[in-house]
Formats: sequence, structure tokens, C-alpha cells
Amino acid sequence: MYVLVTAKMKTYLRERLTENFPNVTFDFKSPISEAEDVLPKANIILTYGEDLTNEHIKKAKNLKWIMVASAGLDEMPFEQIIEKDILVTNSRGIHTIQMSEYVIGMLLQVYRNLPTFLENQRQHKWEPRVKIEEISNRTMIITGTGAIGQETARKAKAFDMKTIGISKSGKHKEHFDECYTTDELKKQLPNADFVINVLPATDDTNQLFKAEHFEAMREDAIFLNMGRGTTVDEQAMINALQEGKIRHAVLDVFEEEPLDENSPLWDLENCTMTPHNSAVTENYVPRALDIFEKNLEQFLNEEAPEVNVIDPKRGY
Amino acid sequence: MYVLVTAKMKTYLRERLTENFPNVTFDFKSPISEAEDVLPKANIILTYGEDLTNEHIKKAKNLKWIMVASAGLDEMPFEQIIEKDILVTNSRGIHTIQMSEYVIGMLLQVYRNLPTFLENQRQHKWEPRVKIEEISNRTMIITGTGAIGQETARKAKAFDMKTIGISKSGKHKEHFDECYTTDELKKQLPNADFVINVLPATDDTNQLFKAEHFEAMREDAIFLNMGRGTTVDEQAMINALQEGKIRHAVLDVFEEEPLDENSPLWDLENCTMTPHNSAVTENYVPRALDIFEKNLEQFLNEEAPEVNVIDPKRGY
Repeated sequence: MYVLVTAKMKTYLRERLTENFPNVTFDFKSPISEAEDVLPKANIILTYGEDLTNEHIKKAKNLKWIMVASAGLDEMPFEQIIEKDILVTNSRGIHTIQMSEYVIGMLLQVYRNLPTFLENQRQHKWEPRVKIEEISNRTMIITGTGAIGQETARKAKAFDMKTIGISKSGKHKEHFDECYTTDELKKQLPNADFVINVLPATDDTNQLFKAEHFEAMREDAIFLNMGRGTTVDEQAMINALQEGKIRHAVLDVFEEEPLDENSPLWDLENCTMTPHNSAVTENYVPRALDIFEKNLEQFLNEEAPEVNVIDPKRGY
Repeated sequence: MYVLVTAKMKTYLRERLTENFPNVTFDFKSPISEAEDVLPKANIILTYGEDLTNEHIKKAKNLKWIMVASAGLDEMPFEQIIEKDILVTNSRGIHTIQMSEYVIGMLLQVYRNLPTFLENQRQHKWEPRVKIEEISNRTMIITGTGAIGQETARKAKAFDMKTIGISKSGKHKEHFDECYTTDELKKQLPNADFVINVLPATDDTNQLFKAEHFEAMREDAIFLNMGRGTTVDEQAMINALQEGKIRHAVLDVFEEEPLDENSPLWDLENCTMTPHNSAVTENYVPRALDIFEKNLEQFLNEEAPEVNVIDPKRGY
């Protein structure tokens, strides 16, 4: 069994794999450009999902399974994957703790005006008259009711928030007080203090948030995007922020990444940004390997891996 | 009935009182120096608790009840209050939401390295390699297991933390996995990722946290004080921070307030400070008035007010 690992990982994690599976050959080659020669040998590819092309899949004549050590599959070459009937699994669920902490942390820093306190400390300035608000008892809309959305809703409930979930199916999910289909998003937006977007990039979600949605949000609403930048009409969002149509945006993802250094977003007072790393803690890759190892054991026993199997036709 | 209000409050809150109790005279005089003449008339004083002296109590010949619109009673002139057998009530419970949000927000900003992200944004710098950690699944010690401590523990449980409470009695309280007496604090400290101090200022708590306690904490521990500054040997804490004996301090309270502008705390990289306002949101005074009005109704019916009655001999 030959596993090509194009996902860059620390030495102790490489050692974990080789020690746990002594009969498997792990070939650590990152970036994938270094792996051109060995592609035909690979039975399994372990990747972060951003490096594979249809050309790679064509060359990988013995490929049976691609394990994606992240959750976003929007850059996967599904055309060849479908044609060659290759199994795809991902790491859905390993982001829930980090990203739900991101939401609570960012909302608290905006509501508690943290940058002002940091600046006052820098200036040795004792100034208690800084406006502080409470996130408790507010209403949170979460677009995307998968694992991350549900965990975010669970934490929001600890702050006694009302939680409204929006998804394609509108099916009820745990930790949400109400769930609606995407068609009802615009109608629900005026209820929200916080609009949290966790949507993946699919054909259905492309530019789902348009000018009319920012128009429908309350002037005191905070919009937080940690799904994908392509789910938002970025220019419409910038306009809404510049015109004060919403209060604040917290953004971890952007239409193009890295964000252009001339984007107006950098300098907007009512925008707080992080560089698409809301989920990247030291536990990220170990958790992905937990999933991979469980599936690999089944694969080595000639059983079908069961954890997080992807339907390549849906793309998630 | 004549109520002297020395607690400064917004017009809509003054109107709320006069409208809800048309038969009561409310005299709004802040600071208390403006109220010297009317003190003898006052049946009730509504104060934030920091302005009354034994002299004031002596002059207030008709005083029956002092309502303190905060929780800290360390500056109250209990000598005269006991001598004249005056009822004291406070606003215990109105800080729980704000201060538990402070804890979660501050721990997240330290663990997620927020100041670095803010600085990178200022510089238009896309730099995802910033260390982020998770507060979930950590161990939190809370010294002080009253209303604020319990609510903090409840929120910590939503982040799947282990919660250890420390109090004088060591009695078990809700949302804590374990509770111990103050004598056991030092023994418990090495278990904690986060040490949250909510202790009030009493004779028992004076400089409770000494050099030996900071010594006992882990090098990666965060110490957060939102109780009273006098419960900590501030110089010992500064030494511990300077010598890296603990990782970070988050401080809302200090031995002397306002903090001296030459205190080394301002410039310590591993110290984040707020000017004793962790609880001061717009809901603070309205919540105190909820308590006051409930007690006032009973008082007007010649019943004994029941909410948050203080034992002046214990001082809390």
C-alpha cells in the first residue's frame, strides 16, 4: 500500500503515521510538483485538497482513495474523480471547536470594544467610559447548519441566544430554535443581531449574499463570514459597510485569497479580518489524522472507509 | 417617603423611578457633597456604595435603608450602619452576564492572539502563520463561587472545560466539577490553565494571592482578576509576569485605582488590562433598579425587603 502525502505536516505527525501503520509506505512530498514521478504508484493521496488537478488524477493510475485533510472541497477535480470512480473522504467535523470559538471570541471583541482598551493600555490611559455590550440574549442566524454551524449554535445557546439556522433543506438540526430554507434567508435577516456564514462554496451558494441581503440586515447587525468568500458579493458587502447599512463585518474568507493589499476592507473601521485561519490550531491536523487512520484501517481490511465519505456529484 | 439618589443615572432611568413610584419623592443629587442639606430627610439612600461615610450616616437621622446599586461593599461605613441598625441591600447577580462574557472574551483573545491580527490588518499584511489555541477542554479554577463565579463556570462548561471552584466554605456549587476551600487553593493551582479570581475584598481575602501562589501556577497559566485588586499581592504578580512564571494576566481590578500611570503593568506584553469596567454595560443600572423596585414595593407595604439583604457584620 502506497500513500502519497502532499499535505505538509510536522515531523511528529509523520512519525505517528509511519509508526501506526508499519506495513504501509508513506511518501511525504509537498508541494505536489515534487510528486509527479510517483503519482502512478499512489493508491491513496492524503492532501489538503487545494493542489490536485484533473491531470494529476489521470496520471495516478492506481489511485483508489483521496483523503482531504480539510473540509472545503471547492478546488477538487471532481470531473476525473467521478470518471475514475475514486473514493473521496474529508475532515468534516475537525473545525467545529476552533471555528465556534472564533465566532464567540470575535463577537465579544467587537461588542466589548477590545481594540479601544488595547490602545488605551498602550497610552497608559485609564478610561472606563468605553461602551461595552452583551452578546447574551441576542439573535444569531447561522447560514450552514452542518457540524460547524451546529457547534456554533450550541455555544450561542450557552449565551442564551435565539438561534436560527438556514440551509438548503431547511431541516431541523440540534441547537437551533428554528430552521429555514435558503429561500427564507432574506425574510429572516431583520431578526438577527449576528449573521454567521459557514456556507461551503457550491453552485448553489455562489454569491448567495447580495446587496439585497445586506439591505435586509439591521443597521446594528454584525456579519461574520468564515465559510467561503465566494458565497458573498464582496463589493456589495463593502458598500454596505461603507454606507453603515450594517454595523460590522468579521471576515476570515474572501473572494480572492490572499486578499489584495489594496482592498478597501483592510482599512474599514467596521471590519475585522483574519487570513483564512480561523480553524488552524495545533489540533487541526491531528484531528484530521484521527479520521484518516480510522478509514485507513478499514481500507487495509478491504472494507469501505465509512467516515466522511463524499458524494462527488454533490461536491460536499 | 423620601429617597436620596446619589447614584448618577441617565434621564430615562430617573423617569422610570418617578413614574413607577408617583407617591415617592426621589431626590437625585450626585455627587453626595450636593446632598449634605437633605441627608436628614432621607428615608432611603440609593448609591453605588463608594460615596458614603460614617459622617453621612450620622447626619441621616431618618435613614432606614441603603440600596447599593453595585455588588462591592468594601467602602461601606458599616460601623455606623451597624450602630443605627440600617438595612443594606446590594445588586448581587446583576454582573453575572457581563463578567462571565468578559472571562470568555478575554481568554479567547489571548489564546487566539487577537492583537497580532489587528496589527497585521493595520499593515495590510496577510499572515496566516499566527499561533492560535483552543480554550475548549482546558481546566479553569474560579476563586469565588457566588453568582458571577457560577455563571462563569456555566459558560466554561459550554467549552467543555473542567471547572474547579474555590471558596471559604468549599461547599459544592452548580456548574463546578469540584469545589474546595481556600486552604486547598495552592494545591489545586497546578491543575489550571485558567485561574479566574472573582473574590470580594474582605479581611479573609486580603492579599490571598501571594508570591507562592504565582509560583504554584503553571508557566502556561492565564491569571484573570475581576474581583478586587486587594485580593492579590500586586508586586508578586508583576514579578511573576516579568519572570515568565505565568503566561499572561488579564486584569480589570488593581490595588489602587485608577492604576498609577507609571505602573509597570501598562507595558507588560503579557498583561491585558481594562479599567475596572468589566461589568459596565447599558443593562447594569436597569438591572440594579429591577432589584431596588422589588424591594421598594415591599418597603412601601411595610414589609421587609427580601432581595439581596446584606449582613453588615460579614460585610457581603
